[in-house]
This record gives sequence, C-alpha cells and structure tokens, in this order.
Amino acid sequence: MTTRMRPIRDTIPLSEARQIIHANITPIERVDHVPLEAAHDRVLAHDVVSTVDVPPFARAAMDGYAVRAEDTFGTSRSEPVVLRCVEQIFTGQIAERTLASGDCAEIATGAPIPPGADAVVMVEETDAGGQDVRIFTPVYPRQNVGRQGADIQEGQTVLCAGDVLTPAKVGVLAAVGRTEVGVIARPRVAILSTGNEIVAPGQPLAAGQLYDVNRFTIAALVERHGGIAVEYRTASDTIDDLSRAIEECLQDDVLVFSGGSSVGERDLILDALAARGEVLFHGIAVKPGKPMAFGRVGGRPFFGMPGYPTSCLTNSYALLVPALRQIAALPAWSPRVVTVPLGARIISTTGRHQFYTVRIEDGVAVPAFKSSGDITSMSRADGYIEIAEHTDIVEKGEVVEVKLF
Amino acid sequence: MTTRMRPIRDTIPLSEARQIIHANITPIERVDHVPLEAAHDRVLAHDVVSTVDVPPFARAAMDGYAVRAEDTFGTSRSEPVVLRCVEQIFTGQIAERTLASGDCAEIATGAPIPPGADAVVMVEETDAGGQDVRIFTPVYPRQNVGRQGADIQEGQTVLCAGDVLTPAKVGVLAAVGRTEVGVIARPRVAILSTGNEIVAPGQPLAAGQLYDVNRFTIAALVERHGGIAVEYRTASDTIDDLSRAIEECLQDDVLVFSGGSSVGERDLILDALAARGEVLFHGIAVKPGKPMAFGRVGGRPFFGMPGYPTSCLTNSYALLVPALRQIAALPAWSPRVVTVPLGARIISTTGRHQFYTVRIEDGVAVPAFKSSGDITSMSRADGYIEIAEHTDIVEKGEVVEVKLF
Repeated sequence: MTTRMRPIRDTIPLSEARQIIHANITPIERVDHVPLEAAHDRVLAHDVVSTVDVPPFARAAMDGYAVRAEDTFGTSRSEPVVLRCVEQIFTGQIAERTLASGDCAEIATGAPIPPGADAVVMVEETDAGGQDVRIFTPVYPRQNVGRQGADIQEGQTVLCAGDVLTPAKVGVLAAVGRTEVGVIARPRVAILSTGNEIVAPGQPLAAGQLYDVNRFTIAALVERHGGIAVEYRTASDTIDDLSRAIEECLQDDVLVFSGGSSVGERDLILDALAARGEVLFHGIAVKPGKPMAFGRVGGRPFFGMPGYPTSCLTNSYALLVPALRQIAALPAWSPRVVTVPLGARIISTTGRHQFYTVRIEDGVAVPAFKSSGDITSMSRADGYIEIAEHTDIVEKGEVVEVKLF
Repeated sequence: MTTRMRPIRDTIPLSEARQIIHANITPIERVDHVPLEAAHDRVLAHDVVSTVDVPPFARAAMDGYAVRAEDTFGTSRSEPVVLRCVEQIFTGQIAERTLASGDCAEIATGAPIPPGADAVVMVEETDAGGQDVRIFTPVYPRQNVGRQGADIQEGQTVLCAGDVLTPAKVGVLAAVGRTEVGVIARPRVAILSTGNEIVAPGQPLAAGQLYDVNRFTIAALVERHGGIAVEYRTASDTIDDLSRAIEECLQDDVLVFSGGSSVGERDLILDALAARGEVLFHGIAVKPGKPMAFGRVGGRPFFGMPGYPTSCLTNSYALLVPALRQIAALPAWSPRVVTVPLGARIISTTGRHQFYTVRIEDGVAVPAFKSSGDITSMSRADGYIEIAEHTDIVEKGEVVEVKLF
C-alpha cells in the first residue's frame, strides 16, 4: 500500500493570504431594484439626485404666529405689540390670505408661511385673547422660518453610489419621494461541505459519521455580512463528485467549500480545483486554520476552508468576511474590541499567527480554546485574541485586545 | 378664535424617560420554531440539551498512523521502529480489524480510531515504503486522539435560553443534529406617521405637503434591532382617525407613531392615546427631540415620536432601540465610538441633553447638524456626540466621543 498523503510543507503568512485574496476578487456589478422598505443596509448603486426641494415651501420652525418681522421690532414683555390674528394655518394647508401689516396668523410647526409674513414668533412669547395676540419679543426677518429647499435642493446630489443605506439615508430617499432604489446585488455564496463522514442534521448517524457544522456557521456569517447563503448538498470525497459540485456552484458568485484541504489521501478538493481552475495558495501560517486553500474557478473566487469547525470559523472571520464585504461593496468591518487582562498564561506556536478563543469572565479573558475540532471552542467563547507569529508566550495578567464575535 | 396650543411646559430628564420606558415594557414570550438556516442572530427560547456525544467516536486529530502507543516508546529518527500498515481508514469509515502489537493503520484526520489503537503518530513523523512504516517519534496513549464526547457530551446543556445564536452557536445546534429551534418571536412594531401634510413617497405633492420620512427611518432601525417593521398608512389629524389607527395597530406588539406630539392644536395623538390608554410622559429635556410622548395602550407600549425627521431618528436611537431590544430579549446594544477632537466650537442649550450630529473628516468631528427638521442633519453625519444637560459650550479641539450610526 503506497501512501499518498500530502503534508502542507509550505505555508504563507496570513498577510500574504489576505493580499492574494484581495487581488483576486472584484465587487459585484449587478444591480437589484428594491422597494424602499427593503433598502436598509444595502449599498447604493448610483448617485441619487433630488428632483424636488425639501421642504418644498417655506415653513414655520416653531408653533406660534406668522408675522411681518418689522411689526415686532421694539416689542417687549412690558410693552407688547398687539397683532390681529386673521387665520389659522395647520400643517398640510396653505394660507388663504396675504398677511398685511398688523396681522398675524396662528401657525403650526411645519405649516407653510403665509404670503406677506417673513418670521414666526414662538407661542411661548405670545398671549392670545380672542382675535388679539400680544407679542412679547421682537423677531428678525426669517427667524423661526425654514426656507424652501433648506434641507435638500432640487438638482442636489443627496446620496452617492457606494453609500450604505443607513436608516438616515433611507430617510433621504423617502424625503425626495423615491419608492424604489438601485442597490448592488448581494453576492450569492455557494456553501458546501465535503467529506464522506459528513451528514446533514436530521438524519441518523452511522458509525464514523458526524453532523455537518460548517455549512451552517459559514451561512450565518455570510448572511451577517451582506451575502446570500446558498446551501448545497454535501459532496463526497471523489474527484467526480467534487467536480460536479464545483460545476453546480458556478451559478453563484463565490464558492466556499469546507473540508478536504488538509493532507489526507482523500482530500481531493485541490485536485478538483486545479483541474477546473487554479489554486492560488494552499496552507497558511495560522493556528488553527492552517489547511486552507484559495483559488479561482470559472472566474469566481473559491475558498477551501478547513474541515474542523473552529478552524473553519476563525478563518471565515479572518479571511472570508473581509473578502465577502469587498465583493458586496460593503465598507471594511472590524470586530468590536474589549481590552482586558488575560486570566491564564497562553503558550502559543511560534511561526504561526494564532487565533485564540477566550471568554470574558469578571473583566478577565479566560481561555476557551479546546481544540480546532471542537465547535465548543467557539460557541463558549465571547471572542478571540490574536497572538503574533513570533510570540511564544502570553503571560497571565498581560492586557489583551479581545475581538468579540 | 381661541388658541388651544399646549406648550410642553414640564419636561423630564432623558434618564427618567429611560426608566419609565424600561419599567413599562416586557420581553416577548411567543416562540417561533425556525429551521437552522434561519436561526442566526435570533434569541434562543429554551435550553438545548445534547442527545448525542460529539464526536460520537474517538477520532484521529491528525493525519498519520493509528498505533498502540507502547509500540512507539523509545523510537527516534535515528533508530525508528517499523510497524506494519494493516489498513487504511478514511473519514466516514470504521476500521475492519483490531490493531495488534506491531501493527499500524493509516488514518485520516477525523476518522475513527481502530480498536486496539490508542494514539496517532502524525504523518510528518513517519516514512512509509510498501507496507512498512517507519515511526520517528514516540507517542503517549491518547496522543493526537480526540476522545468520544470531547467536544460535547450526551446530556450536556450546550446552549441556554436567552443565548443569541451567533454563527458558532448555530454550529452547536448543527453539531448535535438539530434541524430547527425555538426562538423568541421578533416583536411586531406598528409604525405609522401622522399629519395631514404627510404623503407617502410616489404620490404627487400638493401645496403644503411633504413626503413621509419617519416611517422609513424607524422601519430601517427596527429591522436592524430585532423587530419586524409593520408599516401602516399615514393617519390624518383627527381624533377619530387616530383612534382608529391605534385600534388597528393593537394587533402588533409595539406602537410607534410619529408626529403630533408637539404643541399645535392638531397634535391630537396625546388625546387619542389618553382616551384609549395612558400617557406616561410627554416632553423630555433633550435637543432635538423634546416633543416625545410615551404611554401604554391595550397592554402595549406606545411611542409618540417627534415629527421632525432628525428628532425622530435621534430619539429612536436613544430610546426606541434600547426598548425594542429589551422587548426582543436581545442584549443591550451600544453604538461604536470613535474618540476625536472637535473641529468647531458648539454652543449647546443648557437644561437639555443634546444629541449633536457630526461628520468625521480627517480625524476631526465636524458639526453636521442643520436643524431638527432636516433629514440631511443625519444623513450626512457619521454619528453624534452627546452634550450633557449642564454644558453650554464645547470648545473646538476638545476631545469628544462620537457614537457612530
């Protein structure tokens, strides 16, 4: 029996892996047209130019009385001027008459200023009795008046291609009367686990079998970061089945396979990838997560994630998420960080950049890492610390930056 | 003509508003049963106890050779022991024979350890020629072996009620074979704008009318923070129409109306709310956002947000989001913060807690606030600073914490 195991002898540093991935992906150019109600957190495909003034009329910025400002000059609480209220203007209405000198009009915040008026006295500075309104403070022209187009002017570019539609930016679209908008399509990410031992949850386990974990963790992460997770059946460890699986996944934008990039004889993903496309790297100097491959196939990026759940997930955070966000035209993302002392000494592997999962307990980072095969290494952790390639020991009490999941 | 404007004379501090809201909301108890593919970022309704060991068998933690550890004691690169390879065990398979002394079995990472073996020698420490395998390093019993149940044991509580299903926690559910899971239902948030002047985007604007903004900004924020935005038609400014609108919205969990809580005569929301439920506060000492009401109706929290877009949105961030997350059983959320010097002096209103929108330009926080009526006060901002009630001036160059949208 001849062994054909292929150990990963040459690994590349994490930074180099990032560069290779970065150089081999491009943002999606397809555009979805979505209703405003579904536009939040999407990426704008085109500049938006307003076709209206917002507000479309000069309006009261306060509840009070619309006046001719000059009628109020010199007035005071002790010697108030008295104006005659000729109209009441609510929001959604327009004035019926032009204000003459000595007149005022009761006006609600947001209602259109009547012709003739040029300022608003706030209600707190007035006292009304019948039609007579005593004005206690002078106002200058345009005081408490929002001018037409003060917020947005017709012809103004209000949003730019590439803007992420935050709640406020969705509001801008509504303000200029848009009901739908063109946004960058979410990348479709084909997710597939490989391995004869991998069985979908819900089926009984035969001897030597395990439930698929990676398909679900990768899908959850993809959905969080702007992608559409397209889940495929598990592929078995034959070149034929893997090639067929790659073929099927080429209808999507990104391929993410897990398992089969280690050194076992049956780790055939690399062969299948090389036959149909190209392998750009295999093996990175990280721990866990060394057996990872990246390449291109049919013009699409192909991520060969490690099979072990923790390795798969930390590499997904470290390499897949940044790539996916770049493909989705989303801005770079960085995890939230808390800075706390380490609760126990960690011995690391020099020569490999380490992702070490920790739990935060009473303000201290406690190691949560069991093994790269253990999903509980991550599920019980709050985040991870990164230990540089050349560091071999992180002492208890040392202050570390925990990146939260 | 008698004016019936009702100025807000008594405002309560922001902290008190928060307490009142907090005391008057309760988490949702309804449970949704969702497939694993849709479980990410949801809140677990019940503890999850594993019905299986993970892994369900002892397995190789490395590619290499399964051995009886004692056969390797004393071996070295210069004087290797030679074992006879009797089998090849791939993942997804089980061994066909029991390992005798002097035997080894080629084994892939993750494959079940054959009976008789108790350790694995990694492939890098071996050299195979035909059936003979030279072993260059000793291994101790259980070395490079993942024991059955090492990750998760049958009967173990793997996740707890209230856990947010991060990608890793979704992975745990998959690992124990779950295909669906009970999660806390997302609160249904009825969102409705009031005001005769408010028109839905897509319709032509008559004189004095404006497009609805708040319905869209609130909906976007609600969807970001675990709620389901249920959007209702705009209600007009009559007690009848507002009462009817409240009635319709009582099929949802939370009511969020905007507009109509200021002082204008037609601001009838408070009357409609008081008639059907109770007003718990009206008016808070914040700027912008003073005209905000909160109450209860039909056992549900009722938020009367200010009508002005910026006021409505800052109050939504400050008060609605924390409340919604509590109702959705999600953990408290805090915005990301960047600490930068202020680019220009800001004069604030003492006696009111101020939310002041800023843009970050070249590492400096530049004022972006125009007016509380202007949606561009927020859409062009990156975040906001908070200015305490008793501060009147924040000087240029002072270092401020910008909370990012």
